[in-house]
Amino acid sequence: MSAPPLTVLDACLDGEPVGVRCADGLIEAIGPDVAARPGDETIDAGGAPLVPPLVNGHTHAAMTLFRGSGGDLPLMRWLRERIWPVEERLEPEDVYWGARLACAEMIRCGVTRFWDMYWHPEATARAVADAGLRATIGAPLIDAGRSTAELRDAAMRSLDELGAAGPRVAPALAPHAIYTVSEESLRWIAATSAERGLPVHIHLSETREEVEECLERHGVRPAAYLDRVGLLGERTVLAHGVWLDRAELELIGERGATVVTNPAANMKLAVGGIFPHPEARAAGVAVGLGTDGAGSNDSLDLLADLKLFALAQKHAAADPAAIDAAEAWAVATGARAPLLGATPLAPGAPADFLLLDPGEPALGLGDLVSNLVYAASGADVDTTVVAGRALMRGGVVPGLEEIVARAAERAHRLGL
Amino acid sequence: MSAPPLTVLDACLDGEPVGVRCADGLIEAIGPDVAARPGDETIDAGGAPLVPPLVNGHTHAAMTLFRGSGGDLPLMRWLRERIWPVEERLEPEDVYWGARLACAEMIRCGVTRFWDMYWHPEATARAVADAGLRATIGAPLIDAGRSTAELRDAAMRSLDELGAAGPRVAPALAPHAIYTVSEESLRWIAATSAERGLPVHIHLSETREEVEECLERHGVRPAAYLDRVGLLGERTVLAHGVWLDRAELELIGERGATVVTNPAANMKLAVGGIFPHPEARAAGVAVGLGTDGAGSNDSLDLLADLKLFALAQKHAAADPAAIDAAEAWAVATGARAPLLGATPLAPGAPADFLLLDPGEPALGLGDLVSNLVYAASGADVDTTVVAGRALMRGGVVPGLEEIVARAAERAHRLGL
Repeated sequence: MSAPPLTVLDACLDGEPVGVRCADGLIEAIGPDVAARPGDETIDAGGAPLVPPLVNGHTHAAMTLFRGSGGDLPLMRWLRERIWPVEERLEPEDVYWGARLACAEMIRCGVTRFWDMYWHPEATARAVADAGLRATIGAPLIDAGRSTAELRDAAMRSLDELGAAGPRVAPALAPHAIYTVSEESLRWIAATSAERGLPVHIHLSETREEVEECLERHGVRPAAYLDRVGLLGERTVLAHGVWLDRAELELIGERGATVVTNPAANMKLAVGGIFPHPEARAAGVAVGLGTDGAGSNDSLDLLADLKLFALAQKHAAADPAAIDAAEAWAVATGARAPLLGATPLAPGAPADFLLLDPGEPALGLGDLVSNLVYAASGADVDTTVVAGRALMRGGVVPGLEEIVARAAERAHRLGL
Repeated sequence: MSAPPLTVLDACLDGEPVGVRCADGLIEAIGPDVAARPGDETIDAGGAPLVPPLVNGHTHAAMTLFRGSGGDLPLMRWLRERIWPVEERLEPEDVYWGARLACAEMIRCGVTRFWDMYWHPEATARAVADAGLRATIGAPLIDAGRSTAELRDAAMRSLDELGAAGPRVAPALAPHAIYTVSEESLRWIAATSAERGLPVHIHLSETREEVEECLERHGVRPAAYLDRVGLLGERTVLAHGVWLDRAELELIGERGATVVTNPAANMKLAVGGIFPHPEARAAGVAVGLGTDGAGSNDSLDLLADLKLFALAQKHAAADPAAIDAAEAWAVATGARAPLLGATPLAPGAPADFLLLDPGEPALGLGDLVSNLVYAASGADVDTTVVAGRALMRGGVVPGLEEIVARAAERAHRLGL
């Protein structure tokens, strides 16, 4: 770290005044008596609430370039008409600037880590490194229409590139879905994941059609099929899980895999269901929250999607107690999924945390966690700190104007 | 108007550069050649998109005081345990500061008019006048446990007080609901509304229990009952309408009443359904969008709820084309309900409009209306103008700090 150690004074944690001293990317001390040392960069928080950061468990960061061009279409038409034709022309610089914009937006709303699956993953990794965020990144692996050997080559190449991306980027294997990757490749991915201890990030059970096709082709539902090929385990993140039935939830709970629910994208693409969170938790499933890509959301404001998550759960269960604010907040911060991982506000933990805007009306009255879930939006985050470095202060992400302009240039180039 | 005329230069309307000159609270001129005159207050919009403002069709403004104290409870428990015991102790100053906070939050997110139903309506009216907004306000009329004479007295008194509140406040009759107001009082309200040309604002068909009780007591569903007592007409705003069936929608369409849907509150209180917008529009029903009170939302950010509205419609219909961005935007701006009324950006119209933050990433790429619906939040509004007066510039509502502090004092006084 070339920057000086950061010390935050006069923050408010659970109603009590605290300071936080960061050193070497970690929290060195946190408590009422923390003081700055000479040479520290200091932030006087002015009584601002200090909270742990959010984890975006599933996105395609560079798809900020596709924002506002969804046309209110269903998933497959959206992919075939709006997304795939443009993705064929993507260059690494497109992905870099799309991902830089995504990083800026995630910093803005208090996300300090995200799980990404997108083309030219090395460009996304470079964007993450330059932005100062953390991410687990995988190239989408698809062998429908390609050979298994090509898929393996692409996977190994991306792992090499991602491995060189620096300390805040972790590589993952990201098979796109069970309907775009052959059984042979899925088994190879399972073996490679086991061999190298790599996480696996895959879309699962997003649409009813996927479930029906899986039953027809493999005789079992998607989670059971994934288990059969060796991919349902503690290193696996399953994005969506809308149509998982009770037996699948129990299997996932037993195997220790994580489901990341993306309520905004699921509702916008109208997949027709809501991930059954209460049933999943009862079955011991680890759960995280994601925005999905900005092409199908169209925002990356996870704090806004947190409200949608809680409301969709209540609505689907026709029960306002189906989920409460504390549980929803825990999901958004990664505290309900060991693989995603919450960031504790404790000495020795990574120095990743948020300061909220203390003057924000949405946060001024009533219970803070309730307000974070039901009243706040990303704009209420004042300061985002990652690895002891303030990536945003006063709601301002440095360099945003250039990032928006460069992303707009790249979108224009692509005809978006 | 004591303030000088306002002229906005270099705004962007439908992709073209425009200026707007306001005088006497109206738009005097709008177009590419508008220039400021000597003595005008001028805003250089720097290319910011100019859009019409939003209408919040149903709220209880002062309930900002109850934010964050909902406890994830169902509607009737929430009312009985959290709301009613506190409301018994409400003083006009509580309502004033709660409503001032609500006004500040609505200015922040681009709402320039709202429909309110709450205790001490004269205090809300004073808050609206002081804030510079517009509102149609009614005292909640209830005679369950009281006499019809008392209800009439309360109604007449509030109409007198509201009539004196100034040019931007309009009075309404606000019977709380068909299950809290006697048939005799409903008929008197209908006659008074007809006699004086007053709008009527009532909760209708929010829960399934309400429908069942209505069928049991009156032999018909809620809309038919309201029609029977003479209250279903062009001056009537029906808040919620979650459980309206096809025959009710057709009746409402024929009579010309307006339904205001409040998706956030409906989902938070888990009433179990979603207002059937496509069916309602097919039946010719006028539709608006509301936040409901901050106690059951808990935000007043109508721009955030606009996304929820569109997503909930797509989800409920399992069809991403159930509503598109243009239709959702029209609903939020009042363009789908003559009684709520859209504010056209045209000479002679009230000088109410918004300038969006031109540097906001959520608005920078893709279709503007799509981004307003799916990617924006209230924080992306830069300037809110009402009656030719800028109530917010650069995202800053003057005096907000004091308003939040005073509202917090009042909430504290009430034990919230």
